[in-house]
Amino acid sequence: DNSVRVAVMPGDGIGREVTEATLAVLDVLVRRHGLGVAFETLEAGAFCYRDTGTAMSEETFRRAEAADAILLGAMGWPGIRYADGTEIAPQLDLRFRLGLYAGVRPIRAIPGLPTVLADPRAAGIDLVILRESTEGLFFSRDRGTVTAEAAEETLRITRGTTERLARFSFRLAEQRAAARGRRGVVTLVDKANVFRAFAFMRSIFDGVAKEFPGVESRSHYVDAMALDLVRRPWEFDVLPTENMFGDILSDLAAGLIGGMGFAPSADIGDGHAVFQPSHGTAPDIAGQGIANPTAMLLSAAMMLDWLGGRGAGGAWQEAARALEAAVDGAFAAGLRTRDVGGKDGTAAVVAEVLRMINEMP
Amino acid sequence: DNSVRVAVMPGDGIGREVTEATLAVLDVLVRRHGLGVAFETLEAGAFCYRDTGTAMSEETFRRAEAADAILLGAMGWPGIRYADGTEIAPQLDLRFRLGLYAGVRPIRAIPGLPTVLADPRAAGIDLVILRESTEGLFFSRDRGTVTAEAAEETLRITRGTTERLARFSFRLAEQRAAARGRRGVVTLVDKANVFRAFAFMRSIFDGVAKEFPGVESRSHYVDAMALDLVRRPWEFDVLPTENMFGDILSDLAAGLIGGMGFAPSADIGDGHAVFQPSHGTAPDIAGQGIANPTAMLLSAAMMLDWLGGRGAGGAWQEAARALEAAVDGAFAAGLRTRDVGGKDGTAAVVAEVLRMINEMP
Ligand SMILES: CC(C)[C@H](C(=O)O)[C@@H](O)C(=O)O
Ligand SMILES: CC(C)[C@H](C(=O)O)[C@@H](O)C(=O)O
Repeated sequence: DNSVRVAVMPGDGIGREVTEATLAVLDVLVRRHGLGVAFETLEAGAFCYRDTGTAMSEETFRRAEAADAILLGAMGWPGIRYADGTEIAPQLDLRFRLGLYAGVRPIRAIPGLPTVLADPRAAGIDLVILRESTEGLFFSRDRGTVTAEAAEETLRITRGTTERLARFSFRLAEQRAAARGRRGVVTLVDKANVFRAFAFMRSIFDGVAKEFPGVESRSHYVDAMALDLVRRPWEFDVLPTENMFGDILSDLAAGLIGGMGFAPSADIGDGHAVFQPSHGTAPDIAGQGIANPTAMLLSAAMMLDWLGGRGAGGAWQEAARALEAAVDGAFAAGLRTRDVGGKDGTAAVVAEVLRMINEMP
Repeated sequence: DNSVRVAVMPGDGIGREVTEATLAVLDVLVRRHGLGVAFETLEAGAFCYRDTGTAMSEETFRRAEAADAILLGAMGWPGIRYADGTEIAPQLDLRFRLGLYAGVRPIRAIPGLPTVLADPRAAGIDLVILRESTEGLFFSRDRGTVTAEAAEETLRITRGTTERLARFSFRLAEQRAAARGRRGVVTLVDKANVFRAFAFMRSIFDGVAKEFPGVESRSHYVDAMALDLVRRPWEFDVLPTENMFGDILSDLAAGLIGGMGFAPSADIGDGHAVFQPSHGTAPDIAGQGIANPTAMLLSAAMMLDWLGGRGAGGAWQEAARALEAAVDGAFAAGLRTRDVGGKDGTAAVVAEVLRMINEMP
């Protein structure tokens, strides 16, 4: 059997609901495009921790590691925590253990949706936050020291990871210039005016930039970038940054296009990749069938595209484009989920997206 | 002479221009309200460093320290840096050396200005980012370690500073509930789901909250807060947070109300305080007379208010309210600076604000 193997981790809360919705859409796409794929469902997350004592068993990790790609819903639950009070977040473990340094978080205005910014240029928002996802401040996860009087965490930036992130950034900008007509600009987001670690990061980016003369290389301080993402987000293209900064900026940017329900993401390493929406498990709306599955549908499109690029073949990338076009078409035709003031629930999104797919030639 | 002594540090670039504008307005206010104040101008900043070899001399620091309050324009210049590549920023030294732990950054929609967000509720934005300004990640300034392969910085949070920041937050929420009719809600912004240092910070806040039963105490993760500042900023009141997070979120929030030109700030400790706009020296527009001095005018209003609260007397707080009302009145009457698409330069703002002051009974 030469099927592509996808490990599916539904996780907790609405993670399970958007996963079910996404698999229903993928099922149709896979048949239409003749893709050979085998899905294997794996349990991990907060309820898994509560029920089994481990958030992600070693057996589960090994199966995920052995798959060609991992598709993940969302994980975590307010009342279920580790002993030190931090969240059950096996998605972080996957990032660290599989070396998924490139957290790819595309932010693209969905045509037809009401815009959050008053400026009509906001309809042209099309950028990617590239969140380094294995070090930076998150290096300190499980390593922080706490006494009665003070607590410390360590932010760490390495040359190797920064070089890989830089190459990934410039290549992505090249691809976007070719495929989407973007301008091919990489803007490193740092705080090099105050911290040596960020001056170090910047100097490594500057070095790698020389390998990509066709891409414009810039840098911007993180505070100024937070401002500019509000004032002129349509001007940016590829925005690599440190882990904690990327966490903050990607949520900010998602807010500009309608919220986390529209923000897909992929954590990509040199051999593995996890595809998951940027949102959480939304305990407040879980179980009601009203979650917006768009972010996970778009994450699945990123997965198909990535699998195609890794040699699975052109049909995969066609399926990716079809899925993206179907999502766009459904919203352009009037689909409105609750997070953007509408009434459409999870099933309505699936139905509309499938209708769009089935209408395609 | 029992005058209140204000050290004035114009700094670099547009810092000098907005300082001149602000002193012109203060001059009139001081006479109208019969305030006894002596201004002393002190040089510090990037050009001072270039010309004298030191960004702020010890003599200058001692004079600033001896003043009742410090009014600061902006400091720093792209081409002038310390040997390690970091920015000339004596305002950071003032924060650390004078123990100015409370970085008070009010974000208030100026009536009549075009809003950046499409939702009309944005006209009701009235919140304060309370940026801890002496530790957090900035503890690491000048302390970062760099080798050929990796760089590290230390984020540090202490019990003492966190307790002071927490008390400051709850008191500020009480004052705003009394004076401005706000709801009295403190929302700590942290990342306690991943880092022990933030769980530590949160537990200290929870403890101090018990001393203030009249104020509602909440907490929010920094990534979710970045999203919510875009989606529903009108719902927030007082937002204490770590230094680096506050740097990012205060710029983001300034973007919502028209940019840094409208964002005043105060760095307050137990004995000293620095008042300065949140913006930088804007090399691109310096020297043209087009900088928006509003943020510094509003910072000066915060200074008058603070001096009044410290015992300088009720006339000071009346002057503060008059200045705030004059700024609001000028924009409501049609004043439009370049940063919000108008043509009015620095002198026009001064003239309009003075006209408003002179029309007051
Ligand atoms: C759930 C949380 C641990 C996670 C993170 O901080 O990385 C989330 O915010 C994200 O952005 O993927
Ligand atoms: C100029 C810079 C060092 C400073 C900071 O990062 O604190 C500024 O951004 C601010 O917000 O006051």
